[in-house]
Amino acid sequence: MPHQKTPDNPPARLSLISRHLAPDYPINTPYAVERLPDTVDTSLLPKTQIRAISSSPTMSPQPPHPTILIPGPIEFDDAVLQSMSHYSESHVAPGFVATFGETLSMLRKLLQTTDPASQPFVLSGSGTLGWDLIAANLIEPGEDVLVLGTGYFSDGFADCLAVYGAKVTELKAAVGSRPQLPEIEKALSEKRYKAITVTHVDTSTGVLSELANLSALVRRVSPDTLVFVDGVCSVACEELDFDGWKLDGVVTASQKAIGCPAGLSISMFSGRAIKALESRKTPPASYFASMKKWLPIMQNYENKKPSYFATPSPQLVHALHTALSQILSKPLSERFARHKETSDRIKKAVADLGLKQVAPNPDDQAHGMTAIYLPETVQIPQILPSLAKRGVVFAGGIHKEIVTKYIRFGHMGVSVLDLSRGDIDRAIKALEEGLSECGYQKA
Amino acid sequence: MPHQKTPDNPPARLSLISRHLAPDYPINTPYAVERLPDTVDTSLLPKTQIRAISSSPTMSPQPPHPTILIPGPIEFDDAVLQSMSHYSESHVAPGFVATFGETLSMLRKLLQTTDPASQPFVLSGSGTLGWDLIAANLIEPGEDVLVLGTGYFSDGFADCLAVYGAKVTELKAAVGSRPQLPEIEKALSEKRYKAITVTHVDTSTGVLSELANLSALVRRVSPDTLVFVDGVCSVACEELDFDGWKLDGVVTASQKAIGCPAGLSISMFSGRAIKALESRKTPPASYFASMKKWLPIMQNYENKKPSYFATPSPQLVHALHTALSQILSKPLSERFARHKETSDRIKKAVADLGLKQVAPNPDDQAHGMTAIYLPETVQIPQILPSLAKRGVVFAGGIHKEIVTKYIRFGHMGVSVLDLSRGDIDRAIKALEEGLSECGYQKA
Repeated sequence: MPHQKTPDNPPARLSLISRHLAPDYPINTPYAVERLPDTVDTSLLPKTQIRAISSSPTMSPQPPHPTILIPGPIEFDDAVLQSMSHYSESHVAPGFVATFGETLSMLRKLLQTTDPASQPFVLSGSGTLGWDLIAANLIEPGEDVLVLGTGYFSDGFADCLAVYGAKVTELKAAVGSRPQLPEIEKALSEKRYKAITVTHVDTSTGVLSELANLSALVRRVSPDTLVFVDGVCSVACEELDFDGWKLDGVVTASQKAIGCPAGLSISMFSGRAIKALESRKTPPASYFASMKKWLPIMQNYENKKPSYFATPSPQLVHALHTALSQILSKPLSERFARHKETSDRIKKAVADLGLKQVAPNPDDQAHGMTAIYLPETVQIPQILPSLAKRGVVFAGGIHKEIVTKYIRFGHMGVSVLDLSRGDIDRAIKALEEGLSECGYQKA
Repeated sequence: MPHQKTPDNPPARLSLISRHLAPDYPINTPYAVERLPDTVDTSLLPKTQIRAISSSPTMSPQPPHPTILIPGPIEFDDAVLQSMSHYSESHVAPGFVATFGETLSMLRKLLQTTDPASQPFVLSGSGTLGWDLIAANLIEPGEDVLVLGTGYFSDGFADCLAVYGAKVTELKAAVGSRPQLPEIEKALSEKRYKAITVTHVDTSTGVLSELANLSALVRRVSPDTLVFVDGVCSVACEELDFDGWKLDGVVTASQKAIGCPAGLSISMFSGRAIKALESRKTPPASYFASMKKWLPIMQNYENKKPSYFATPSPQLVHALHTALSQILSKPLSERFARHKETSDRIKKAVADLGLKQVAPNPDDQAHGMTAIYLPETVQIPQILPSLAKRGVVFAGGIHKEIVTKYIRFGHMGVSVLDLSRGDIDRAIKALEEGLSECGYQKA
């Protein structure tokens, strides 16, 4: 993009940024656009308000850029980004095989599973591919699946399951809430479900689902039903005890709390899930996403044996290895606590501003993101550029029923854990100042 | 991996490298392991024989490493690797949207299509995902597909088509050859095929298929039959005229001649192919690989409009943008000519060594790789470490009928185009010396 001259008067500057905003862009698929301000023309940003550059010569120095505080992709650590530019290696050379194998083993620790029957998968793809893994491999056409409806992403999971022939029952909660245990128990007692799916954090609403009691309920009421978790916006920032909670599958992606650039589908399946795969009456309904094809490959990599089905991305796997090494260098409990503390601080600041969250019940609120209703007088095309001017990028809404009414603030990974960055404080201050610039005053 | 002490005597050094080789690793899926020597312990490599490090402070300096001359991934340019560590951006921010849009437009130029009905796709995934795109979107269950059998990769394409319900007829050629036009004409006249698939270069044999005459034949004999090309090992190193040759689909990957790290499925489809998608009687048989879901997203990105179905990888797309910008900075004809010249030089050197190629007919030989039969007295576990000692990494065999009998030498991208690297000369010299070390003398 050509460099644009910076106008001197703020209104013109605001207008210059606004030109890049969503109102100019027709939405191609309903509710499918995440609206965000321009992140290109950093000349418009006050230099003191964008994050400091690392001065370490051994790290990949990131040029000045707006701080990405959307619910993924997040800001990345220098060492992780440096791993992305790893020199070329063969995907079956022992060095890379060892790196991939260690990465898979570290995923076991991140998801807190020591059961040798648990099986991690890392594939080139996005978080969405995890839905296909479950739908094409662990459910057979005509089998019933109960989807707990929390928003845009549980709807997507339901759509994906239906594509592969599952008979989907979606138990939908009101916007900002989640299905409650008694109604889930009722649904489970009415029909025999092959599986139940739950979106741990629905990125469209910031609603956190409760897994431990849910899984206990399923085991009590319908013990053969497999419990599958969409952990795209929860893994590495929310407590998740794969073994203790008796989960059968968790699918996630690289670019959220794990803190590795996008491009990897990451998942963990239980021995029960692998049995469901192996006892299918029909072959898996996908080739690239066939867990039968990938299972021996993943097992071999973890055993440090080269193996080939389709070429993985050595660079992304190196970056994931670096990210997981960093995560596991400290107790996970500390990581989750830090995310909770920061989340509490943000949610208090939001309340102090007189704003409401999409998820009103504190027990239902995610700790890696906050979905915030805007004051009625403030519109997304005003507030996001106002934040961008202050070096902070939030996301607009994505849930179809409230899409224009709220914004989303992601707080995961280095922005939460590395206090020296000052990301969170700057974001809270930007939100206060931005709302004020948009004419909002707390009642 | 722990650093290993370098033994002083060459036999022990050879043995140290050999420990990392394939014989220690059981093959998990038949013929599915590409055998390669260790690329980790560079302390074993004479420093003068590994490629020089760039001294430019603006580039990502690559540490000393063995030169990867396998048929993908290839060696990457410094600027491409630098793009991999791009700071975090939103996947729907205008800056990234512009980069992605330009990338899609550049793919049109690379594939030589100016027909506005042609549609490029760039998805997170591997080259294999391209097979799923065709099989799940452009063929409906029960439809007949003629697969031209050239080796391991055409067999894989056939398997993938069958997973989604295509009725596959595979017209297999002898190892090292390709189906001939008269037999293809006969097959096309016997049945009405929805599509024909051809592997432009089968990476398992180094066989190059002829597309222009093939496509003309299909148009003459069976004009409604769609022509789909697996271009994973051909795009950006072999002449490919999408419009002129009236192709309906070309699927490829990032990590071969395009010269961008692995992790992207890259494809181009004709207006006829898109019509086949839009007129399906059944919905696409995949969710993540649904071209109906991705079509508006790709169109919006190219029109510089943010759009969301699943999160792309900004870092990989930046690297692809850099790679394509470099490719298109010079005439494509020059690029193809350079690959042909280098290939001719390598094939002459192979013949001068008294060795035979898997593809004996010069017209059938790829220009981005050479599959070389080993002398009967030389085994893969001897020659690959001997090459590795000399800083050069070749691949072992992968075609099931000849898997232990040949090696593969990839010559694509910067190793061919940047003479200052000396990669090709060093590889030819290493092959000569390595064979000699293994006791081979030309008869």
